[in-house]
Amino acid sequence: MSIIPVILSGGGGTRLWPMSTAEKPKQFLALTAAQTMFQLTVQRVCNRAIFDAPLIVANAGHAALVKDQLDAIGVTDARLLLEPCARNTAPAIALAAIAVSDPDAVLLVMPSDHVITDVPAFHGATQSALALVEQGWMVTYGIAPTGPETGYGYICMGEPLGSGLRRVDRFVEKPTRDAADAMLAQGNYSWNGGIFLFRADAYLNALAVHAPDILHAAQQAMAGAVHNGASISPDAKSFAACPADSIDYAVMEKAQQVAIIPVSMGWSDVGSWDALYDLRKQDSSGNAITGTARTRNASGNLIHADGIRISVNGVDDLIIIANGQEVMIMPRGRSQEVKDFAKD
Amino acid sequence: MSIIPVILSGGGGTRLWPMSTAEKPKQFLALTAAQTMFQLTVQRVCNRAIFDAPLIVANAGHAALVKDQLDAIGVTDARLLLEPCARNTAPAIALAAIAVSDPDAVLLVMPSDHVITDVPAFHGATQSALALVEQGWMVTYGIAPTGPETGYGYICMGEPLGSGLRRVDRFVEKPTRDAADAMLAQGNYSWNGGIFLFRADAYLNALAVHAPDILHAAQQAMAGAVHNGASISPDAKSFAACPADSIDYAVMEKAQQVAIIPVSMGWSDVGSWDALYDLRKQDSSGNAITGTARTRNASGNLIHADGIRISVNGVDDLIIIANGQEVMIMPRGRSQEVKDFAKD
Repeated sequence: MSIIPVILSGGGGTRLWPMSTAEKPKQFLALTAAQTMFQLTVQRVCNRAIFDAPLIVANAGHAALVKDQLDAIGVTDARLLLEPCARNTAPAIALAAIAVSDPDAVLLVMPSDHVITDVPAFHGATQSALALVEQGWMVTYGIAPTGPETGYGYICMGEPLGSGLRRVDRFVEKPTRDAADAMLAQGNYSWNGGIFLFRADAYLNALAVHAPDILHAAQQAMAGAVHNGASISPDAKSFAACPADSIDYAVMEKAQQVAIIPVSMGWSDVGSWDALYDLRKQDSSGNAITGTARTRNASGNLIHADGIRISVNGVDDLIIIANGQEVMIMPRGRSQEVKDFAKD
Repeated sequence: MSIIPVILSGGGGTRLWPMSTAEKPKQFLALTAAQTMFQLTVQRVCNRAIFDAPLIVANAGHAALVKDQLDAIGVTDARLLLEPCARNTAPAIALAAIAVSDPDAVLLVMPSDHVITDVPAFHGATQSALALVEQGWMVTYGIAPTGPETGYGYICMGEPLGSGLRRVDRFVEKPTRDAADAMLAQGNYSWNGGIFLFRADAYLNALAVHAPDILHAAQQAMAGAVHNGASISPDAKSFAACPADSIDYAVMEKAQQVAIIPVSMGWSDVGSWDALYDLRKQDSSGNAITGTARTRNASGNLIHADGIRISVNGVDDLIIIANGQEVMIMPRGRSQEVKDFAKD
């Protein structure tokens, strides 16, 4: 049975400002390799013996960017679902589930801006989950927590369901630090990796029960969609009327047959400059540098110089990012604070 | 008796890189006011009841820049001596002394990149020195040391000569820290401000005795000079053959009739980013900002953003300078280290 990758590229994150911008958000940047995060995501499911052609859900304003980046890696069979506006993940995935003609089709839903360094482990987990998915279960991929992060969703893992899968007992969204510490100590929790595997009809059925407004708006938008080659443009007015909600809140936390497959696959959501520093190759002084930069008596700095040359002397543990006509400087460990700048 | 200001604009300093560059060195930048350092220097001697039209000695490559900056402040009577190459101050002043037709003329020699906040004090000192200068003495302006700086020249002040002037007993160039401490404790020392007052013939006579090679080369260069309106271009080949030396080493340290006029006039040579921070207006957090910058939880920073927006969060006491396609970051107190970057 083949699997249809659904790649969610609609995000416009501010956490990697000033490199990530509304015009060219994080997924379209080459942050961890020569390829962009989006390209790496597409290449992760490029084996057509296992995966069907991907379905890309992206902001209509990024259509040209998506096509260019697909062309650059020689992927010619992708279909594009171009959102006229952002309505979070539940509606985006609804468009994809409706666009798939075969209701038995299995969808592998993935954000386009995550790192997975152990792709065989990812593929192995996907294969392990298929039997339950065919029975109508909805599966999420669980990441072993490495610290008491308060920015992630946590999942309490329940009874074993075979092949390494476990029933989801409970979702805990963005806990307090104390709650995160308690879950880590308890040991039976995974981070919610935001990657999902389910049959298209299982998702649409769950929407019908738990978020009928979203299902209805998505169906209307697809009924009025304009098809142009491999691109599908849902009706803007219908989709604008759709409530915005995440798949976690709208469906996963409420549905009955929800399972988790814990998998160790070198996952990172690259959700901050600090996370990127950890992923980056560092020189002997602990500086992680991309672009044109010079360092003297400097250590532990993350430096990205795009178009501008950065010269630093005698400073340690800073994040220094230059892009276009913007330069941002802050200490490592405080990269969440970048959001205040990105707003203006 | 009128005084001819000789304004030395040939410097190409690297200490304020990346703002100061070979194409547009420090004296041509607006560092401390709306006017550039050069313009402030010219305006300091603009009273034609006291000062004759100035003679500007500049690098030939900066001729257009000099003319533009003179035009912008409405100074139309300046003469330009355009050096075909840099040979330090002794030859530059020799060109000026030769260019002046009247051997009795008094020259007021000034660098074009110093700050003097108390101009009346400067003028007062100049008037006080004139009587000795007319008798053939060469006078240097002494600055009261404010700390054991090792980058300046010190002057040991000897017997009083009247009108506040004192004989120069000894020059001490760029002392060790211990030597600087000792001179401060001793109390009888001034910094050498690099500003001089003397008759043109006194300087040329001293050159003839102590640096005849420089005098000869300068005379040859002026004999072959091309005059073009208010601009004089000395002969390049002759001037290239001139030994490079400072007026201090070549003349002042060796001549007999050398006096110092100590003067408190708010002097600074703006010789480093740290010096500029001290001169700049600071906000309530101690940040001194020019250009487009945003600060959050940041204090004591010197920020200059030219064409680039700088956003800093959570950093203190840094020097952050953006100019063109260069950004330089270092801690305050270490700005001497910028020279290493400026070389490349």
